[in-house]
Amino acid sequence: MPTPSVKLNNGQQMPLVGFGLWKVDGAVAPDLVYEAIKTGYRMFDGASVYGNEVEVGRGIKRAISEGLVERSDLFIVSKLWCVFHEPNRVKEAIQRSLSDLGLDYIDLYYIHFPYAMGYVDPAEQYPADWDVPGVFKRGTTTLEQTWHALEKLVEEGLTKSIGVSNYNGTALNDLINYAKIQPAALQIEHHPYLTQETLLKTANHHGIQVTAYSSFGPGSYIELNSNRAQDSENAKPLFEQSPVAQAAQKYGKSPAQVLLRWSTQRGVAVIPKSNNVKRLSENLNNTDFDLSKEELEAISSLNKNLRFNDPIDDGVLIPVFG
Amino acid sequence: MPTPSVKLNNGQQMPLVGFGLWKVDGAVAPDLVYEAIKTGYRMFDGASVYGNEVEVGRGIKRAISEGLVERSDLFIVSKLWCVFHEPNRVKEAIQRSLSDLGLDYIDLYYIHFPYAMGYVDPAEQYPADWDVPGVFKRGTTTLEQTWHALEKLVEEGLTKSIGVSNYNGTALNDLINYAKIQPAALQIEHHPYLTQETLLKTANHHGIQVTAYSSFGPGSYIELNSNRAQDSENAKPLFEQSPVAQAAQKYGKSPAQVLLRWSTQRGVAVIPKSNNVKRLSENLNNTDFDLSKEELEAISSLNKNLRFNDPIDDGVLIPVFG
Repeated sequence: MPTPSVKLNNGQQMPLVGFGLWKVDGAVAPDLVYEAIKTGYRMFDGASVYGNEVEVGRGIKRAISEGLVERSDLFIVSKLWCVFHEPNRVKEAIQRSLSDLGLDYIDLYYIHFPYAMGYVDPAEQYPADWDVPGVFKRGTTTLEQTWHALEKLVEEGLTKSIGVSNYNGTALNDLINYAKIQPAALQIEHHPYLTQETLLKTANHHGIQVTAYSSFGPGSYIELNSNRAQDSENAKPLFEQSPVAQAAQKYGKSPAQVLLRWSTQRGVAVIPKSNNVKRLSENLNNTDFDLSKEELEAISSLNKNLRFNDPIDDGVLIPVFG
Repeated sequence: MPTPSVKLNNGQQMPLVGFGLWKVDGAVAPDLVYEAIKTGYRMFDGASVYGNEVEVGRGIKRAISEGLVERSDLFIVSKLWCVFHEPNRVKEAIQRSLSDLGLDYIDLYYIHFPYAMGYVDPAEQYPADWDVPGVFKRGTTTLEQTWHALEKLVEEGLTKSIGVSNYNGTALNDLINYAKIQPAALQIEHHPYLTQETLLKTANHHGIQVTAYSSFGPGSYIELNSNRAQDSENAKPLFEQSPVAQAAQKYGKSPAQVLLRWSTQRGVAVIPKSNNVKRLSENLNNTDFDLSKEELEAISSLNKNLRFNDPIDDGVLIPVFG
């Protein structure tokens, strides 16, 4: 069964379920991506800062060369890292991602965070994550300047769609006012502890497709030794919350599938990650059952505006969630 | 004793304690402002949307005409309402406030919310609050365009300082990058249930003075019948929280004074409001004692990122806090 897709505001089709490449080790990425394509995944959600685009590209290449899929069957996502916000660096950044991936266009290119860092020459450090010692410095490019540079990438055919990630309502609203090309997509942290009602309403109102990251809430952060996720009082595993566990039992699904379905039934795309072939398939096939209105609401009522991904925890003054 | 003041990043002095004019009824405003000046208040925090600038102006005029103060002793604040964000409406807006107040300059003029509404002719509705039936519509002006219009007001001498209110970290950071005149001040909701650590750090880092509104947390919202403030489980009155009550008893102060001192010791200015002459004086005199580091931390540890003022509660899709 092909996974359902949604039509973006520019007419492009985007799968509602994809594979998330954050925290995927380069060593396993080629095989994992290949297996995911074999399993039926068509959307791959990557970013230059994940540091694995070369290896992801190898998996894609193998699947295409073996005739599993054509390039046009795939929906490849990448993201502009903070050190490339200067308008004259944006093209360099996407070209590096394209070269690493071995592709000639991206399907959806996001601004990764609404925060400009100072430029770091890729010859010195790539990717230049903010937690690499010595890398973090504040940049002076405005969000509008960077957006207009992304618009040029569309005109040049380097990406089909553009969007923003980790934008809040104020930043998204402002973007809508200065955009010549409206954002097609918004990617945000979204799970039952952070249901993002206002941001979802705003995106829906303006025809912007939302994608959730960290759909499993604290469960998505255990491998990072996150203090926020290890707060057992506040951040009880979502798989153990009764509205999730009960629905899983009722429908004969895993709690993970219930969490993903809760999201897709709200119209929010998901990009789970797994190293396990069985779970790869489970995560993809989360749209063949429907939660009731009451079940959706019971899961949503777990909301406590609890965010797990915040750069401030890395000791850098990046106030995107403050 | 004169109230302490702080030097803004443009060299202007601003009192650390002022009188907040939100929810002050026009009928009592002239006398209340006059009494407040008599009590020693020098900063008055108003806004066109509070709908009382004419009456506030009368109180100021009486105090000046009776020789209690001169204009230059006072620090008068007003705010640009959302329906005047279009650059060619900004001057009209401040001129209306100046005319209503009977003044020829404002000391500090804020953008009230980072959200442009469509223009409403003052001849039809003034002030045009978003909850007036038929008033709310979305505007298309960007925050940068409005800020540059405020910069012109400084050049024209209509206000000495400019700032922003209700901006989050992303919006503030972007503003710093597009500003020709840096913001002197940031006004935000701030109390022990919403300690705003990231935003305070960011403002401090850039030399932007923060002012707290709603220093008493839920207590500031009771008269508005706010659902959020009436949530007795989450929003227990701050006056009853033991770190506040204990410090009040220890220093022989009121819980209100402790809450205000907690803020001013963090370097955050306060603008309490009271209709009661005794409390007027108490609120002003909150800087003649010091809480210990441990007491400050105990009060700060009440934080739960609980916000009481959000336009979304008024049924308008203004996503400034989403």
